[in-house]
Amino acid sequence: MEELKSYYKRVAKYYSAAALLYWDMQTYMPKDAGPYRAEVLSEIGTYAFKQITDDALGKLLETAQPQSEIDEKLVYVGKKEYYKYKKVPPELFQEIMITSTMLEQKWEIAKPRGDFEEVRPLLEKIVDLSRKYADILGYEGEPYNALLDLYEPGMKAEEVDQIFSKVRDFIVEVLEKIERLPKSEDPFNREIGVDKQKEFSNWLLHYLKYDFTKGRLDVSAHPFTNPIGLNDVRITTRYIVNDIRNSIYSTIHEFGHALYALSIPTEFYGLPIGSSASYGFDESQSRFWENVVGRSLAFWKGIYSKFIEIVPEMRGYSVEELWRAVNRVQRSFIRTEADEVTYNLHIIIRFEIERELINGELSVKDVPDKWNELYKKYLGLDVPNNTLGCMQDPHWFGGNFGYFPTYALGNLYAAQIFEKLKEEINFEEVVSAGNFEIIKNFLKEKIHSKGKMYEPSDLIKIVTGKPLSYESFVRYIKDKYSKVYEIEL
Amino acid sequence: MEELKSYYKRVAKYYSAAALLYWDMQTYMPKDAGPYRAEVLSEIGTYAFKQITDDALGKLLETAQPQSEIDEKLVYVGKKEYYKYKKVPPELFQEIMITSTMLEQKWEIAKPRGDFEEVRPLLEKIVDLSRKYADILGYEGEPYNALLDLYEPGMKAEEVDQIFSKVRDFIVEVLEKIERLPKSEDPFNREIGVDKQKEFSNWLLHYLKYDFTKGRLDVSAHPFTNPIGLNDVRITTRYIVNDIRNSIYSTIHEFGHALYALSIPTEFYGLPIGSSASYGFDESQSRFWENVVGRSLAFWKGIYSKFIEIVPEMRGYSVEELWRAVNRVQRSFIRTEADEVTYNLHIIIRFEIERELINGELSVKDVPDKWNELYKKYLGLDVPNNTLGCMQDPHWFGGNFGYFPTYALGNLYAAQIFEKLKEEINFEEVVSAGNFEIIKNFLKEKIHSKGKMYEPSDLIKIVTGKPLSYESFVRYIKDKYSKVYEIEL
Repeated sequence: MEELKSYYKRVAKYYSAAALLYWDMQTYMPKDAGPYRAEVLSEIGTYAFKQITDDALGKLLETAQPQSEIDEKLVYVGKKEYYKYKKVPPELFQEIMITSTMLEQKWEIAKPRGDFEEVRPLLEKIVDLSRKYADILGYEGEPYNALLDLYEPGMKAEEVDQIFSKVRDFIVEVLEKIERLPKSEDPFNREIGVDKQKEFSNWLLHYLKYDFTKGRLDVSAHPFTNPIGLNDVRITTRYIVNDIRNSIYSTIHEFGHALYALSIPTEFYGLPIGSSASYGFDESQSRFWENVVGRSLAFWKGIYSKFIEIVPEMRGYSVEELWRAVNRVQRSFIRTEADEVTYNLHIIIRFEIERELINGELSVKDVPDKWNELYKKYLGLDVPNNTLGCMQDPHWFGGNFGYFPTYALGNLYAAQIFEKLKEEINFEEVVSAGNFEIIKNFLKEKIHSKGKMYEPSDLIKIVTGKPLSYESFVRYIKDKYSKVYEIEL
Repeated sequence: MEELKSYYKRVAKYYSAAALLYWDMQTYMPKDAGPYRAEVLSEIGTYAFKQITDDALGKLLETAQPQSEIDEKLVYVGKKEYYKYKKVPPELFQEIMITSTMLEQKWEIAKPRGDFEEVRPLLEKIVDLSRKYADILGYEGEPYNALLDLYEPGMKAEEVDQIFSKVRDFIVEVLEKIERLPKSEDPFNREIGVDKQKEFSNWLLHYLKYDFTKGRLDVSAHPFTNPIGLNDVRITTRYIVNDIRNSIYSTIHEFGHALYALSIPTEFYGLPIGSSASYGFDESQSRFWENVVGRSLAFWKGIYSKFIEIVPEMRGYSVEELWRAVNRVQRSFIRTEADEVTYNLHIIIRFEIERELINGELSVKDVPDKWNELYKKYLGLDVPNNTLGCMQDPHWFGGNFGYFPTYALGNLYAAQIFEKLKEEINFEEVVSAGNFEIIKNFLKEKIHSKGKMYEPSDLIKIVTGKPLSYESFVRYIKDKYSKVYEIEL
């Protein structure tokens, strides 16, 4: 066991280097350094990949003698991943790495112009490579399941589809009711300088007691959280001058991710059980802090005085008005700016498209049309260009297929966890007092401390006593938005 | 040859990752991430070390068929380094890496308190390890030569000593003449806010046409230049509110290093000939820009109007007054703040101490006393504490012995290169017009384009037609400072 652990911990150091190379690429790297950075990331990623598929590791896994339940889980998860990745030729892995890094850099330049043709050839290549990857990994049902499993172990597209269709029908119904109401003026529709936004984001992180001795807040085009190493989990946000909500909720969202990574037991670090249970579970934590906590009236009661101190131009609005304004529901083009209600529709569209792409039922060249068609169908919107359309998100251009559904699953897990939490604490009281330690302890004990010991379908049962369903989410939205809009939902 | 080049270029990617890990450690890394970062740096450094000492590389070097003079130089330098490092056990290398990273982190905390006892045990360990390292590398004459050779290939301590003693006698003489003059008020002795300093440093880099698409300017406790990858050479500076000279000249100094790294032919990147000729030559470039260019009257004529625009509190001083003020000679405690004349004395003291340490003639515990004794002897100063004394510089605490003399050698190379340059151009005219391309082209053609193809003792002859001597430096100082102080030197 000790040898096995050392092996993993040694390889983890290369992942740590790769994480920093990636973080730097998104934050501080000079422009011309991109192509070489792609090569370095590919080399180190490939080296690490060779290590986690090396025969020596297989032997250690087969001969290890677990001394505890944790050891047993470690060996179980380790074996599962070892035999899965062992099937993948390092050349394919390396080609995926280098193609996706190149594509991501190209996309960054082409996105503002919405120039899909510019990225199409490399996107076609990465879809091809991903399909090859899916075939090699193997799957039950459809090829897409092989990729989905990388992000949400054990989850199947069909199950996702069943849950998503319920969610979609519910949202469409809610949306219709809300859209019938008269529109009010949006108090956040004004310019707030970057300095003030930065000050408030930093204050928020101190208020939430984010540990700055083990992290940082920086700026990137797409906010992200990066566990760079032991005691080093960094987050980024972005400042958009005409909507301070964007930086506020990006910051809180990434805080949720970082809290998870920082709360996994130190002794798990670098081991197969040393990460979050799944991408969906990771997202449940960021969504929980962003929406369930951060968009609650109780939270606004706690931050209101500081907010209007830093942003005095908002002094004319009451706490309830600001709370309503951060919970405005409206059809929009951009996923990351979507409200809690319509957000899942954005995901469902992406899920439908990428599922067809990987299953070979849709060509890359038809993605923009398909995208625009679905936005019309579910959201009633005419997408004016690819910048606001299919080129808005980095995922596909970073070679990540099977990732998107985890965002919506995160929302569902979060709602289900929230119901359980409310059985144990008086949520409004705790949150309005800024007494977050109680919530953190609950999440740590129930979820974070378990690392990746359990598959998400088991973990949600362990935490809430029930399998994943859409029902908690429906109750959560009904309860909250009937108060926000003072209507019957 | 192609296989050999690929081998080196692959390994270079690990050095690139290590360079970023180091840069981040000095600039943005959260405090608690230090111990793990030391482990990651050690792992990646050791892996790269194993690669450059692997039998496979030896075989490639022995069977390579050079197709050009460049190939020949590549194989020559490659073999020299391969057989040198091959003798070193990876365990020793790893121990040096991890000990020095730990010591450096400890030193950073202990330095402000001047607490030598706090760092003494690890410093003793690193001196021991360095002596072991020297024995294994092998040397002619004394053990110190083995380490000096790592920074200044081919150079011997005895030769350094001979040149340094001439320089020392000359400086002591000049210093006495200058010290007899009445002291004038120092116009820079005032607070200038960090924002203004930052603005001016950035302006300077644009004025010098530093390529920001291939680099950055950040802040660190000790300014440094880090070639992180192809098209990625970053510099740092520091802002000290009560002396803007510090940031101005740190910025120009590091610009000189970065220019060198960015001007080495792209096709050399990652190969044994793909770096500067030596640490001394690297320093000759930074010193050349900092002192020969940056502290000239012609340079101040070019920057004066922008300087007083950004720093209007200095408007009362003429360009000549400011030029004199950036060339004030005075005995001081801190090497990095020393003027051009006394600077080499600081180096000579460090050289004497580290030479004795490595040769086993001085114990670590006696370093503070020895330091203070030599500062009294050469500079006439009573060192009040170790913060201003033997703990001021990071080098020894990063395990770098044999490095210090290269700073003074850099000054000597720079003066000799300057004499050559003046034969070809009208320096005053070119510099006051900000016409730096002419100088850059000269340096690129004569020095940068050659990478590490030549040993420094050969390169200085190729560039200037003469072997290294102290004479150009003496002429340079006499000529310049007789104008600065309007006296006979």
